Amino acid sequence: MDNILNYDTVSLDEEECALEIIDQTLLPYEIKILKLKDLKDIWDAIYLLKVRGAPAIGVAAAMGMYIAATQIHTDDTEEFLKILHGKKEYLNSARPTAVNLSWALNRMEKVCMDNSGADVCKLCKLLKKEALDIKNEDTEMCRRIGENALSLLKKGDGLLTHCNAGQLATSKYGTATSAMYLGHERGYGFKIYCDETRPLLQGARLTAFELSGEGMDVTLCCDNMVASLMRQGLINAVLVGCDRVASNGDVANKIGTSVVATVAQRYNVPFYVCAPSSTIDTGTATGNDIVIEQRPAEEVTEMWYKRRMAPENIKVYNPAFDITDHELITAIITERGILRAPYDLN
Amino acid sequence: MDNILNYDTVSLDEEECALEIIDQTLLPYEIKILKLKDLKDIWDAIYLLKVRGAPAIGVAAAMGMYIAATQIHTDDTEEFLKILHGKKEYLNSARPTAVNLSWALNRMEKVCMDNSGADVCKLCKLLKKEALDIKNEDTEMCRRIGENALSLLKKGDGLLTHCNAGQLATSKYGTATSAMYLGHERGYGFKIYCDETRPLLQGARLTAFELSGEGMDVTLCCDNMVASLMRQGLINAVLVGCDRVASNGDVANKIGTSVVATVAQRYNVPFYVCAPSSTIDTGTATGNDIVIEQRPAEEVTEMWYKRRMAPENIKVYNPAFDITDHELITAIITERGILRAPYDLN
Repeated sequence: MDNILNYDTVSLDEEECALEIIDQTLLPYEIKILKLKDLKDIWDAIYLLKVRGAPAIGVAAAMGMYIAATQIHTDDTEEFLKILHGKKEYLNSARPTAVNLSWALNRMEKVCMDNSGADVCKLCKLLKKEALDIKNEDTEMCRRIGENALSLLKKGDGLLTHCNAGQLATSKYGTATSAMYLGHERGYGFKIYCDETRPLLQGARLTAFELSGEGMDVTLCCDNMVASLMRQGLINAVLVGCDRVASNGDVANKIGTSVVATVAQRYNVPFYVCAPSSTIDTGTATGNDIVIEQRPAEEVTEMWYKRRMAPENIKVYNPAFDITDHELITAIITERGILRAPYDLN
Repeated sequence: MDNILNYDTVSLDEEECALEIIDQTLLPYEIKILKLKDLKDIWDAIYLLKVRGAPAIGVAAAMGMYIAATQIHTDDTEEFLKILHGKKEYLNSARPTAVNLSWALNRMEKVCMDNSGADVCKLCKLLKKEALDIKNEDTEMCRRIGENALSLLKKGDGLLTHCNAGQLATSKYGTATSAMYLGHERGYGFKIYCDETRPLLQGARLTAFELSGEGMDVTLCCDNMVASLMRQGLINAVLVGCDRVASNGDVANKIGTSVVATVAQRYNVPFYVCAPSSTIDTGTATGNDIVIEQRPAEEVTEMWYKRRMAPENIKVYNPAFDITDHELITAIITERGILRAPYDLN
């Protein structure tokens, strides 16, 4: 199979004016590149998690908005902007909880607002540039997070990550994985541990896949094995991504993150949250103010070989995220620098 | 489907001189009773987890040793004992971590040693009685553990358990679940939470199954969701079984136990280990002296709908047990009483 890193997670085919994404629902078995021109198909790709990870969703949405703009057949700027706004709102409904989605779409619309005197052709060019800028900035942001994280690591370290905050969640490098990629290029010889991340297995399906495909030394384990690893001294640092950072440094991230953080604290293993500064939400005071999405029971009870692995009609608790309290976090690593307690992110 | 509690987890068919067990690898879909007469089949049943749970393994092994004894064709006591010892050692090799296996087999052999003047026929009768005694004592032991544990709980408590230390792991009642059964009979109205217990899902397949089948209020979650539950105050106590207790109170139990214990300590949730006194191994100083069984990678990577959920050739860390350090344990509940730190179990 081809190396996943030979492909962009999200890109714009400028000639055909189409969004190109890797269909992540088929990984790790098939690298299928989807070329999407229709807005409904782009909406579906976001909704169905064919493209996922907050930064990657933002980039895909921005490119989708540009593609939609090119399909508006009018020379009247006012009419163009009105139609474009409708398409923006439609895209924004694909995953209403993903902050980067609305952030990227608002940024695209602002380009038009700031240039409302321009003609439609000019606006389309500006939208294209903005979408490509968002992607390039995302790549640069990830690289900087990686450099900052790498400054905290040493050669031969055992590194644990949870879920997928990897290249498949961003334009390039990932957030939590960025230091792993940069360190790998520079001969750090990290020993990477991925937990599988139940229920949807992003760790097993995506992180283990992309890092081992790059030739790193990767070991997969179940979520409940992290204490066993740390008790043996095999983990020198934990690196995770995040979905939202509250003002006091509490972090919302994939369910299970706070379990890893709690165990890491017990074994004095540094726990680093890799966070684009755009995920710091100064409008949220603490983790208690973050609403946690509950997901369907079937994610836990189904997926199994031949048949479900739980009694019929059993009640299931299946939150998508949990809150990691700031006192469990050694540092929050952003593209701008490394933040440590006491966190005051206002 | 029949209620699982209508069946013995392990029993001796005295007429056919066969071991009867529920094949637990088929639960929760099929209650299939296996009738095993061949020592290799009994060894396989233990190794392949058709019968599992330290107390149940002890009972099955004792019965297996009796059945093997009846198949030794000699009237010479000395020769009989020599052959029996070989069969004992063979059975003992099926699983390395659970101390009940060797405990039960040693107890069976001691009966012979204490009656070395007896003829082979008499020894077989003594072995049969000993095996049945071990089972009856196990039932009584579980009941007493349940009474002791129940004295620490109150009506309406939210109780979390890990893996299956239930009726399916013992002769009756279970160890960790015994207080749940007794409390349920007495109207305690517990809210039970079972984590699924990757990789083999004993929590989802067995514990959720046996407790919900009894009519208890049971909620299933993934292993990485326990911090989320505790952070919300939904758990008043954790009850788990154990496979071996070292002299200093360190406990070997199903992988993930120490994760739950670490999280429980953070949220000030009492963490109780329910341990037959036979699992206290005074020959083992600390948890570091306990050999941890490593199991096949396929348990983690396979089992999934349609196809494996991990890259090919990925390294997998899959220990069957972990060590929970004694300082994480609020109390060790045995049939004889409730032990608290400092533990000195010599």
